[in-house]
Amino acid sequence: MTYCVGLRLNSGMVFMSDTRTNAGVDNISSFCKMYTWCKPGDRLITLMSAGNLATTQTVVGMLEEHMKAASDRNPDIMDVPSMFQVARLIGETVRDVIKSATDGGLQSEAAFSATFIVGGQIAGGEMRMFLIYPEGNFIEATDDNPFFQVGEHKYGKPILVRALDLDMSFEKAAKLLYVSFDSTLKSNLSVGLPLDLQFYERDSLNKGYEKRIEANDPYYREISEGWSDALRSAFDSLPDFQRD
Amino acid sequence: MTYCVGLRLNSGMVFMSDTRTNAGVDNISSFCKMYTWCKPGDRLITLMSAGNLATTQTVVGMLEEHMKAASDRNPDIMDVPSMFQVARLIGETVRDVIKSATDGGLQSEAAFSATFIVGGQIAGGEMRMFLIYPEGNFIEATDDNPFFQVGEHKYGKPILVRALDLDMSFEKAAKLLYVSFDSTLKSNLSVGLPLDLQFYERDSLNKGYEKRIEANDPYYREISEGWSDALRSAFDSLPDFQRD
Repeated sequence: MTYCVGLRLNSGMVFMSDTRTNAGVDNISSFCKMYTWCKPGDRLITLMSAGNLATTQTVVGMLEEHMKAASDRNPDIMDVPSMFQVARLIGETVRDVIKSATDGGLQSEAAFSATFIVGGQIAGGEMRMFLIYPEGNFIEATDDNPFFQVGEHKYGKPILVRALDLDMSFEKAAKLLYVSFDSTLKSNLSVGLPLDLQFYERDSLNKGYEKRIEANDPYYREISEGWSDALRSAFDSLPDFQRD
Repeated sequence: MTYCVGLRLNSGMVFMSDTRTNAGVDNISSFCKMYTWCKPGDRLITLMSAGNLATTQTVVGMLEEHMKAASDRNPDIMDVPSMFQVARLIGETVRDVIKSATDGGLQSEAAFSATFIVGGQIAGGEMRMFLIYPEGNFIEATDDNPFFQVGEHKYGKPILVRALDLDMSFEKAAKLLYVSFDSTLKSNLSVGLPLDLQFYERDSLNKGYEKRIEANDPYYREISEGWSDALRSAFDSLPDFQRD
């Protein structure tokens, strides 16, 4: 499993992904699930993936091959003029990869499915974020729904729904993601540290702050322990049930 | 979908279930998913169910038919001498019902699967709680894992894991379940009010306090709103992330 979240705030975007990949519970490994392509001053594109690792790595591989040998037939996410076209290109690539894995050949029991979050900005356009489905179609984050989650999204959703605010600073947003990831890690073995964190500052058209959060990260531990205590205090602060 | 939780505390057991049943999102209804059988002074058995409604209602129907016409071949949960045998009987009934639904006949796309929580006490024995799988086998709640959830369990689990305490009063435990259900209701349309709540006091061998929580329940609203505020304060009380 996997857990990735993208937040689209007023001041920019925040991305976080875990790195755990598993086939069963006895075969786990770490793989980066966050990919960034940047041409400073022109565009920044960050992609996060959940699903079959062969599918997601092939999608990224194909996107990178196209960058080296772009043509009219194979346009390239580093050349297209809008984030909408970036999402469309990735969607088509996902659909092609899944189609070629399921057409003939051995049928694996594991599905070939994969879902992506892509966010970024291209000079002359707005900062945008999309959720791309395995079918190749996609939806865009809006002010009404300013975040996307892929993978094991349920445990970490309640706090996002309640505490996310479009005017949050990057620092507060990062804290929110730490809490959301901690709730998920505590409940699902197949989501695991280290985590990757990245900020994108609106209109910077450049890579922002990045961090890999390892298991011994002191702030992660502070949040993980602090959140348990804070939750218990919050719970205690509510009035008890009374029998009527 | 459904959400049911059973807590096994030191002083007794607390059960809560929602009442929503749906076939798609455009066909929803209310059905009670909590069943209690009681012979005061001898035994109390409470059963909660999640899964295919035809399966769960048939299981309950068959258990009740056996009560009317018990025999050596068809032992009855109101006669067997231990909670372990109650769990085994229910497990066998579940397996038989699912087997007869899947053997021949029309194959529906919806699965016939169902999962149950049963808790209770029989004179001369301890209070026990079991989770019964669709395959008919079951596991028991212990001090290490003193609660079971069935149905849409993910959204409401983090607070249970963090705040549950075996020495809790019934009033605090009910509050915990209100919070856990509120987190689930806020995230999944297919879990809905009204809710059913029931207490069982250890060694009472009788039905305890019961309540149906309707949509306009003032305490439910107080918890639902109060929990959002309390969560936001808890979140604000943690230190913000700092870039290094």
